[in-house]
Amino acid sequence: MKENRVERIMAALGEMGVSQMLIIDPMSIYYLTGVYNDPHERFYGLLLRADGKHAYFLNNLFSIPQEVGVEKVWYSDTDPAMEIVAKYLDSTAPLGVDKDLKARFLLPLMEMKAATGFVNTSLAIDTVRGIKDEEEQEKMRVSSHINDMAMVEFKKLIHAGVTEKEVAEQMLKIYLDLGADGFSFEPLVAFGPNAADPHHGPDDTVLKEGDVVLFDVGCIKDGYCSDMTRSFYYKTVSEEHKNIYNIVRAANEAAIAKIKPGVPLMELDNTARNLITEKGYGPQFNHRLGHFIGLAEHEFGDVSSVNTTPAVPGMIFSIEPGIYVAGDTGVRVEDLVLVTEDGCEVLNHYSKELEIIE
Amino acid sequence: MKENRVERIMAALGEMGVSQMLIIDPMSIYYLTGVYNDPHERFYGLLLRADGKHAYFLNNLFSIPQEVGVEKVWYSDTDPAMEIVAKYLDSTAPLGVDKDLKARFLLPLMEMKAATGFVNTSLAIDTVRGIKDEEEQEKMRVSSHINDMAMVEFKKLIHAGVTEKEVAEQMLKIYLDLGADGFSFEPLVAFGPNAADPHHGPDDTVLKEGDVVLFDVGCIKDGYCSDMTRSFYYKTVSEEHKNIYNIVRAANEAAIAKIKPGVPLMELDNTARNLITEKGYGPQFNHRLGHFIGLAEHEFGDVSSVNTTPAVPGMIFSIEPGIYVAGDTGVRVEDLVLVTEDGCEVLNHYSKELEIIE
Repeated sequence: MKENRVERIMAALGEMGVSQMLIIDPMSIYYLTGVYNDPHERFYGLLLRADGKHAYFLNNLFSIPQEVGVEKVWYSDTDPAMEIVAKYLDSTAPLGVDKDLKARFLLPLMEMKAATGFVNTSLAIDTVRGIKDEEEQEKMRVSSHINDMAMVEFKKLIHAGVTEKEVAEQMLKIYLDLGADGFSFEPLVAFGPNAADPHHGPDDTVLKEGDVVLFDVGCIKDGYCSDMTRSFYYKTVSEEHKNIYNIVRAANEAAIAKIKPGVPLMELDNTARNLITEKGYGPQFNHRLGHFIGLAEHEFGDVSSVNTTPAVPGMIFSIEPGIYVAGDTGVRVEDLVLVTEDGCEVLNHYSKELEIIE
Repeated sequence: MKENRVERIMAALGEMGVSQMLIIDPMSIYYLTGVYNDPHERFYGLLLRADGKHAYFLNNLFSIPQEVGVEKVWYSDTDPAMEIVAKYLDSTAPLGVDKDLKARFLLPLMEMKAATGFVNTSLAIDTVRGIKDEEEQEKMRVSSHINDMAMVEFKKLIHAGVTEKEVAEQMLKIYLDLGADGFSFEPLVAFGPNAADPHHGPDDTVLKEGDVVLFDVGCIKDGYCSDMTRSFYYKTVSEEHKNIYNIVRAANEAAIAKIKPGVPLMELDNTARNLITEKGYGPQFNHRLGHFIGLAEHEFGDVSSVNTTPAVPGMIFSIEPGIYVAGDTGVRVEDLVLVTEDGCEVLNHYSKELEIIE
């Protein structure tokens, strides 16, 4: 177990008045134990207790031979799993549970009165996971570094007559050759007017001269996700499109310049949004500025116009303003940033200069 | 809404002493409304009430314009979704909930005392879904018919030097060309000793003379899944492998011959298992005989040595005995069957004769 992470979570639980929590999110369990397991429909959980009597509940069909520094409690498909779990709970205290704990596990614990109350304490884990420790920061740097190198290769896939799908299909091999373990999400490749849909997936659209070429891509390396967007132009770019590009880039850079500990995240969204609005494209920036990222491509926490949470050193999130003009074009410029003691470190280093692909 | 299905579920709930249920499984909602929606992390539910005051809860980010014959209750991301749901519940009666309802939705309903109690009533839906009505039976026949035709094409993909992966990669197009909507699961292709693992996925193994060629494949058509396994031989087959094949085929046919209403499902498993055990391969048949199938590839219900549930007309499940000899070979012969009034209808018609591919 990563003891420093356990301690941070126990402290957050303590502030909620809870002394025990049953964690069932496989990614949170990985965060604490270094073991990833997909339990499908079976029960899989990690109990953390303030008195240190932690327990790790496993079905004997799971293959988890390694020691993880916490008592392993095995059960079989014919065992009453929740009765076994109940024995490890402090029935004289409330139990914190993960937000995703399912009724078929929660209701039996309630019927057995396995705790004095049941509280959704996922926030305790989510806020801790939102602030990356040094080991995680380094892994996030490595993942984004691969993403920077991959973008260089992706640009080379662009040539006359190519379709979005043909480009997208070559991306996995490029990531793997660069040392990534896979995609962090299915790559978005959008040509021309297709880029006006922020979530456009690659289809059979053929590249045309003057098209914007938008890549929103990321890989996973050692469990950690990268995510970057760059928007290029093929052969030529109109003055209007160049203008849009420069507004989006300026919005990205203005928001990044504002990042430092204590700044409410909504101020970052406002900074980018105000700049885009002043230029007349406010309605065409129709999504939040960014999202948290780490073990999952989208983690709890966002950079939106309503999030008053202040930036804290160790937070990593995306800054991804965009302008989307239906039927015409779309541009997004996205970097991952790490909040530092006195500002931020941009994890992506691929140029944001307007580039024309010949 | 499919009123006959709603009625069957309300009857099953009535037997449980429950007069209202909150369904959240998107596949169960599709079963009742004909609308499929993936809500991701947002709340999505269908409330069924014995007094007919049903309600369909939708986030306004979902795109569900069609009428479905039930009141639509829209909420936005900034609305307190569960407070809205609570208003539609009978707070003087217990509420049945789906087994997969998450704590973040269930706990707020409990705090609001939105019902007098909360009970996992998923079985009411699962048992109804396990007995297919005529519309479903016809769709299952069509899906399995495509699967039969696809098997003819899959056999043609076998030639000297081909790898499992190369074969598997051509399967989707064949299904789509035959009118299917996609895979019901990723196809299993196993050559020779790889077939000794019942779940072996296609890899770079090259076909060799004398190999068994196992295809465990299925497609989805109009929402309904097919699933069939056939085991061929390449160029030649040893006497021992021929013997194993014939035992598995006989086990498949013996179990199918036993199917009729009232027969406990465990008897089907026992029939196949006893036959294989008498021939000395009992330990090499290391899984249950079959599983239920329909809108999902694996639905609630199985054909195992401990399931005392009697067969009922309308049930559709797989009959898939196998023998797996580590390091040597594996054989499985699988059909889907529909229980009828006086026996069963085998949905697959692809031959079970031992076939050698030249």
